[in-house]
Amino acid sequence: MRVYDIIEKKKHRLPLSEEEIRFFANGVASGEIPDYQAAALLMAICLCGMNEEETFFLTAAIAESGDTIDLSAFGEYTADKHSSGGVGDKTTLILAPIAASCGVIMAKMSGRGLGHTGGTVDKLESIRGYRTTLSSEEFCELVKKNGIAVIGQSGNLAPADKKLYALRDVTATIDSVPLIASSIMGKKLAAGAKTIVLDVKYGSGGFMKTPEQATALAETMVKIGKRYGRRVAALITNMDVPLGNAVGNALEVKEAIEILQGRGCPALRALCLALAKTIVQLSLGIEESEAERRVTEALESGAAFDTLCRWIGGQGGDVSVLLHPEYLPAAPLSLDILSERDGYIFGMNAERVGEASLLLGAGRQTKEDTLDMGAGVILHKKTGDTVSRGARIATLYASDEARLEKAKECFLSAITYADKKPKTQSLIYKTVL
Amino acid sequence: MRVYDIIEKKKHRLPLSEEEIRFFANGVASGEIPDYQAAALLMAICLCGMNEEETFFLTAAIAESGDTIDLSAFGEYTADKHSSGGVGDKTTLILAPIAASCGVIMAKMSGRGLGHTGGTVDKLESIRGYRTTLSSEEFCELVKKNGIAVIGQSGNLAPADKKLYALRDVTATIDSVPLIASSIMGKKLAAGAKTIVLDVKYGSGGFMKTPEQATALAETMVKIGKRYGRRVAALITNMDVPLGNAVGNALEVKEAIEILQGRGCPALRALCLALAKTIVQLSLGIEESEAERRVTEALESGAAFDTLCRWIGGQGGDVSVLLHPEYLPAAPLSLDILSERDGYIFGMNAERVGEASLLLGAGRQTKEDTLDMGAGVILHKKTGDTVSRGARIATLYASDEARLEKAKECFLSAITYADKKPKTQSLIYKTVL
Repeated sequence: MRVYDIIEKKKHRLPLSEEEIRFFANGVASGEIPDYQAAALLMAICLCGMNEEETFFLTAAIAESGDTIDLSAFGEYTADKHSSGGVGDKTTLILAPIAASCGVIMAKMSGRGLGHTGGTVDKLESIRGYRTTLSSEEFCELVKKNGIAVIGQSGNLAPADKKLYALRDVTATIDSVPLIASSIMGKKLAAGAKTIVLDVKYGSGGFMKTPEQATALAETMVKIGKRYGRRVAALITNMDVPLGNAVGNALEVKEAIEILQGRGCPALRALCLALAKTIVQLSLGIEESEAERRVTEALESGAAFDTLCRWIGGQGGDVSVLLHPEYLPAAPLSLDILSERDGYIFGMNAERVGEASLLLGAGRQTKEDTLDMGAGVILHKKTGDTVSRGARIATLYASDEARLEKAKECFLSAITYADKKPKTQSLIYKTVL
Repeated sequence: MRVYDIIEKKKHRLPLSEEEIRFFANGVASGEIPDYQAAALLMAICLCGMNEEETFFLTAAIAESGDTIDLSAFGEYTADKHSSGGVGDKTTLILAPIAASCGVIMAKMSGRGLGHTGGTVDKLESIRGYRTTLSSEEFCELVKKNGIAVIGQSGNLAPADKKLYALRDVTATIDSVPLIASSIMGKKLAAGAKTIVLDVKYGSGGFMKTPEQATALAETMVKIGKRYGRRVAALITNMDVPLGNAVGNALEVKEAIEILQGRGCPALRALCLALAKTIVQLSLGIEESEAERRVTEALESGAAFDTLCRWIGGQGGDVSVLLHPEYLPAAPLSLDILSERDGYIFGMNAERVGEASLLLGAGRQTKEDTLDMGAGVILHKKTGDTVSRGARIATLYASDEARLEKAKECFLSAITYADKKPKTQSLIYKTVL
């Protein structure tokens, strides 16, 4: 088998066989297929597409290109969640303890972030003492004890995806449904959970720009997961506006604590409950209404907050920080963003707010950048809110003045005003089961 | 400017600007653009196309990516010829001395071959003593004296094309009209001749499979050349059947001598006269009928053969070989291919005959292979000829038995028979001016 013939076939819009797709994925993972041939095939896939079957084969090949995690020792109720990325997305920190409180096993690996803020693992590291690396024995023990543990990526999971993603990133071949779906699902299938719930974002801060595109991607991923023998669902959610009121690592941990303590942004709370409900419903195989009752109970009773404390404490984190979020890292400097006029916030471009957060030091521009855990943005107003001239819209946090000034300019470009209240979009567009 | 954005633009089927195309070609030539990004863009061009303007810009950028040859010292009548490749194509050896005899300046660089036989320079090296490398002073002197000199590629001509072609060859991005046209014309424009005549082949042994495809390619190339200020024309010619009766290096030199001595295959003679006529017509700016008269006269009077002798002798070649072709290198072994039945030769797949020639040792499979100058095929019968069972169709020449046997099998698979005379296609389909 020659990769040349595989490229030629795809270029002529012919479907590739399972064998051809595995040959490609394994050759990419092992380095036997040179980057230039992989790049040519990626562009051909991007432009000629892949059918459902091919996309499934590619996903399975990616999932099986390296180590796969066996969570079967934890029984049938293992679950995982994936978000296609967004600005201010701290949902894992909230829904994982809720689901674990309901008996779901959240034995999870999370990534570090590149972009506007860190990933879940970075955010967790803003809690003093939290260890993102555990031995397998420790990990198993904690999962068995608390029903939850979250560590950083370890092992050689889906190496074909790492190489393909790096290549797509520099060859303008990111925006292809089969390539996105196989990349996300390849990693999730390798991570071993029986239930996978996807949060597929659309909007200015999301990966997909329209709800229709996000739905198409979600449907593809749900089909792949089911065919691979997993229980899978996806929520299509809006990311025109940042999620919640905080963007930044420690700032988001603080907001997560607020939600788990029964306070905080209602939209964020609603999304976390919806995701947790879907996880519980699928994992335990119960009715939606029953799942809804259980997750609400877990949140409102304080059980989920207790689970958070056991989880964080179990991994070495300082639990006093959860009880006193003012002990979390904080940036020394701040700058208020004031409204330029009376009226309504008409738009708050999530992507721009994310960029402002990056400029403040909350995210990484390159893999080598270190994060400023206390840096970020707190939003006091969001799309649809009334404002009067001079009112505080947001506060920016950073460790030096220059960053504040740069971020201010960026943040201001995210805001548009109007005289009338704009139509607001509901956060959850639909669920794909 | 970032190559990423250029790839993204082409992927969205948008035309690239001259500046973007130059950035790409120069970046490829210098090595600043990595192969994987070049490969992705090549595939995007292959699938999304390029308009006339973009194709012109790419050609100019390729032509100007390295050294360009200035032939202006030789005046206005410099001409060059390009063939898109074919089996048994020895036309340069014939038409160059014809055109030179008519006053056209043939100061030419030719390539070595990879595939069924060597290139023109390889064929010339089957003549004892012929030097394919000359100092510029020597080259100029010989061109001024004889109106003709043919040397191997030297200098850094169109380096962007070398890299792009090597990459296309391994990424299944060969069959794209803008990429083929810019590759061929980029090199020809850099080579400096004022007149360029193209022989674009179609058929089983040609690059393009149909006359329509070949015409589209030819039209693109002619437009590019004219826009660049050159006089350009193309002949669309059939390559379903090998050209002439000989395939192989010394065997083809011998056939070229026969034509220049007024003998040999009428179809080959007609094609060489047609190409030479077009070169003379365009170079000298004379009427077609007058050009036809002059080239026929040059051939029939023996003037062209005299020019051949002066040319070869000038470059150190042994002229006695031209007068006694039996002194050319010959392979020690031969094998006759006999007709398997009575009837007509219905088809003689040129590509297969070329492969047989390669197996005999006349061509290179890799750049490092050495050529067996005497190896090859002599055709006694061709498509449309009557045969009786046991009659000789061809003779294979090689230096070892194993090669003969392998080539025989390949050659036999090239031949089909019929009871009725097949329709024969005319060799010249049309001229694109």
